[in-house]
Amino acid sequence: MSNVPQSHYYRLVVSCPDQVGIVARVSSFIAQQGGSITEASQHSDLETGRFFMRYEILAESLGITAQALREGFAPIAQAFNMQWALTDTKRLPRVVLMVSKESHCLVDLLYRWQAGELACDIVGVISNHSDMCALTEWYGIPYYHIPVDPQDKQPAFDAVEAQIETLDTDCVVLARYMQILPPALCQRYRGRVINIHHSFLPSFAGAKPYHQAYERGVKLIGATCHYVTEELDAGPIIEQDIHRVSHCHTPTDLVRFGRDVEKAVLARGLRWHLEDRVIIHGNKTVVFS
Amino acid sequence: MSNVPQSHYYRLVVSCPDQVGIVARVSSFIAQQGGSITEASQHSDLETGRFFMRYEILAESLGITAQALREGFAPIAQAFNMQWALTDTKRLPRVVLMVSKESHCLVDLLYRWQAGELACDIVGVISNHSDMCALTEWYGIPYYHIPVDPQDKQPAFDAVEAQIETLDTDCVVLARYMQILPPALCQRYRGRVINIHHSFLPSFAGAKPYHQAYERGVKLIGATCHYVTEELDAGPIIEQDIHRVSHCHTPTDLVRFGRDVEKAVLARGLRWHLEDRVIIHGNKTVVFS
Amino acid sequence: MSNVPQSHYYRLVVSCPDQVGIVARVSSFIAQQGGSITEASQHSDLETGRFFMRYEILAESLGITAQALREGFAPIAQAFNMQWALTDTKRLPRVVLMVSKESHCLVDLLYRWQAGELACDIVGVISNHSDMCALTEWYGIPYYHIPVDPQDKQPAFDAVEAQIETLDTDCVVLARYMQILPPALCQRYRGRVINIHHSFLPSFAGAKPYHQAYERGVKLIGATCHYVTEELDAGPIIEQDIHRVSHCHTPTDLVRFGRDVEKAVLARGLRWHLEDRVIIHGNKTVVFS
Amino acid sequence: MSNVPQSHYYRLVVSCPDQVGIVARVSSFIAQQGGSITEASQHSDLETGRFFMRYEILAESLGITAQALREGFAPIAQAFNMQWALTDTKRLPRVVLMVSKESHCLVDLLYRWQAGELACDIVGVISNHSDMCALTEWYGIPYYHIPVDPQDKQPAFDAVEAQIETLDTDCVVLARYMQILPPALCQRYRGRVINIHHSFLPSFAGAKPYHQAYERGVKLIGATCHYVTEELDAGPIIEQDIHRVSHCHTPTDLVRFGRDVEKAVLARGLRWHLEDRVIIHGNKTVVFS
Repeated sequence: MSNVPQSHYYRLVVSCPDQVGIVARVSSFIAQQGGSITEASQHSDLETGRFFMRYEILAESLGITAQALREGFAPIAQAFNMQWALTDTKRLPRVVLMVSKESHCLVDLLYRWQAGELACDIVGVISNHSDMCALTEWYGIPYYHIPVDPQDKQPAFDAVEAQIETLDTDCVVLARYMQILPPALCQRYRGRVINIHHSFLPSFAGAKPYHQAYERGVKLIGATCHYVTEELDAGPIIEQDIHRVSHCHTPTDLVRFGRDVEKAVLARGLRWHLEDRVIIHGNKTVVFS
Repeated sequence: MSNVPQSHYYRLVVSCPDQVGIVARVSSFIAQQGGSITEASQHSDLETGRFFMRYEILAESLGITAQALREGFAPIAQAFNMQWALTDTKRLPRVVLMVSKESHCLVDLLYRWQAGELACDIVGVISNHSDMCALTEWYGIPYYHIPVDPQDKQPAFDAVEAQIETLDTDCVVLARYMQILPPALCQRYRGRVINIHHSFLPSFAGAKPYHQAYERGVKLIGATCHYVTEELDAGPIIEQDIHRVSHCHTPTDLVRFGRDVEKAVLARGLRWHLEDRVIIHGNKTVVFS
Repeated sequence: MSNVPQSHYYRLVVSCPDQVGIVARVSSFIAQQGGSITEASQHSDLETGRFFMRYEILAESLGITAQALREGFAPIAQAFNMQWALTDTKRLPRVVLMVSKESHCLVDLLYRWQAGELACDIVGVISNHSDMCALTEWYGIPYYHIPVDPQDKQPAFDAVEAQIETLDTDCVVLARYMQILPPALCQRYRGRVINIHHSFLPSFAGAKPYHQAYERGVKLIGATCHYVTEELDAGPIIEQDIHRVSHCHTPTDLVRFGRDVEKAVLARGLRWHLEDRVIIHGNKTVVFS
Repeated sequence: MSNVPQSHYYRLVVSCPDQVGIVARVSSFIAQQGGSITEASQHSDLETGRFFMRYEILAESLGITAQALREGFAPIAQAFNMQWALTDTKRLPRVVLMVSKESHCLVDLLYRWQAGELACDIVGVISNHSDMCALTEWYGIPYYHIPVDPQDKQPAFDAVEAQIETLDTDCVVLARYMQILPPALCQRYRGRVINIHHSFLPSFAGAKPYHQAYERGVKLIGATCHYVTEELDAGPIIEQDIHRVSHCHTPTDLVRFGRDVEKAVLARGLRWHLEDRVIIHGNKTVVFS
């Protein structure tokens, strides 16, 4: 169930109030350890005065562990009032996929994961239906069938939350789960639940977006990968893409085109999240893709 | 002020309730006249049971005038309960452009018109400002400066309508006019007033769409070319396109990218309208592009 | 192994020298049988004077079988010197997929086929390796492992041809087969063997196109779906698409992006072929998509 | 003739052999001067072991002139064996545009320049024809008509080179000049002459690329912005883009679509060049867009 990247990196991700000298201080610290930075990204948001950076550091160029590096870095982080994380690519994020009956996103993610495109452990698939069980287990992944009673959904969501907890989950992916998670769950896993919405948000939030798009007569349909928040379809957007349509196309065609867009957008968004390329900034994202 | 296409065509555009035999009847009529059909497009809308077609017929292959062809076709049109038009490409549509202070769409349309990409006469430019006068007159086109009093707009709109009337206008293009036309004018020129909206509708209708898009943190911005109706930004969509943006981009960047999308989308939409490629169908369009 | 479309259609596909009256004659014939045309496409190639058309006719609107319709149509076809075919959507094309070790196109096609996006029977997968056997058989499809001896390839190709023959194959898809088929096989199945080439042809024909693209420093990579002819990577192009790349991307990234483009382009090209939307015209194609 | 950006920046652009400590040394130097870095980009090319960086530094945050900053930085540059430049956005690059009879790129660039999208002085337009004179002079820019004798081109190219020299030119843009510059001129202005080629290179190098594309039956056409080298159409690529085409489109349509792609690609490429975002790396480019 593992996809270890070929090289071993530490990733430092920082956001803090912007000021002169941040890069100098951070890069000097890394250089003093002999750290070789293989990828560096920075962004200064001029409107909010906030600074963002992400460094990918070759682990073998440093003589120390991730934990030692964290301890050395902590005083700098404190001095600049940073929100920060230093991750070790040897420790793969633990991902839970949640699906309903639509299989295209699940099939796509499992294939990409097996092909080594997604650096994570997929520790389980949770579904309110049993349809995707055989496929999931073919990949050697445990399947948790937790039916949702439309009259009383909370027990199911409690079971979902317990299962996510039990699996020691870093990231939950709603790969067309089609159920609205309760606010408490959204809050608890804030910034760690990724959804694919099958419209070009903010157009056509809510149910049956392809039918809404068809009714409005748009000439492009889209999909949106975003973090889940308490407010439906309104969380920070990670990635979007579109597909051209015309008067020839029925709602069925839109659904078919949309499947391809959804797969692509979710796969990109998740990959970036897993590689610590996405930083939430208010209700927006900085994406160092 | 003219752009005559090199070949001479009649264009037959039809919409009617679908039934067996329409194409047979129409194409047999054209064939009996010896008409050579150089382009043919058809569409059956299965949901509404409506049929649409557009034929481009080489005029020289027929022995008769457009008017004679119309007279011959009228009984067929009546038998099938058609809405229809037969246009002659020698008779160029008379177009009025309306602008405010933003010049990019005007500059683009005038250039394309001069380059022969838009088969029309541009008979005048109407603006609530005088900024674009020199440019317009450089192209030999009359400029009508009709200021709009924010406290009392109706007199200006009356003058606009009178000018459009005087110019015997077939089509009005709101090339970033930035004023909302009164309902009466919208109704009178229904299906003949084309607007470019600087967002991917239905997202961000109304004012300052790029700033709305920036605030929402979308990853794609867009533009929409549509027919104007009484309801703001809600008319039938002709064409849309998008441009990718990221956290790096300020609202100023979005405006800059947007200019290119607006120009492209408006130019395509107008070209299709002028070539009788757009048929309104309820609040949607059939576009035989 | 079947994907029967929900409605039952006959598809008439024609190419012939252009002249006045073709559409009238064909559409009148269909109308006389009471045939309801649900989709109609036509194209006149002005350079070569050739005419192309494709009709989709609702079978239940006709009182007769496909074979009776063919017999009735034959005199018309002869009068206009047509190349033509009338297919019945109840008779699914029999498709053989050929693969090597790269799985992405195979996985994608099998999934789309199972999801009902490809109206065909997949009657077998032929490979020079055994890697894809388990996956193929999971879908209930026979797998034929025919190793190719690099020193003497002809025996393998003879076995391949025999297997294709035995399976009564309508269409062969080289889904990253990575072997060059012998000319005799290309000729025998002319217009029925579809390849996906992993470059934007005619750029980077031949081996290792992503590495060629990387060396040249292009900013877009692509993929091309085309019919196979005796001349390598030079057959009629059905579909192409691209993906943006930058200096950040290694050849490995290009290969990864390319997989997505290849999948999409091959799936579209094959779907159009299976729906009789592609007509070969010299070394080009007319695609009524 | 000037477009001064609203803020005043120094831009530091560096390429050098990669090693630990470059960013630390450079950013510490900037920080010691109190320099506020508003945009930072870095790239390590793992294949060649070369490092690239670009900093945009707010001039007012430094107490010193560009020249003083250069002097302070020189020892660092030497220590790391850097190729480098420090530019001052108050000193606008001096650009010469060269055109033939096709006007679309010239019109587009002049408009963007006037609209403030291109931070440069356009100091002259050179053409082998007189067609674009009126337009150029309408923008207040000198027009140099230097006819090229097809039997003996060198005198014209000598005059062109002299004019470029006289105008103290930083950058030459071949905005559809349609003449092949002599090798000596290419060498002398290496990395400073930008061309727009009307194909998706390396496909269809040389003459009449749209007709070549039409003959090959491609489904996408493109344009390529690249630096000019002695080898025709083979220099480092800055930017490319494409437009979808089909069997419906004649070579004339391809030329028309191509104009839009050419304009967009050249404008982006030139803007990036003028903002010091493009670094040549062998026969490829690093583009910090």
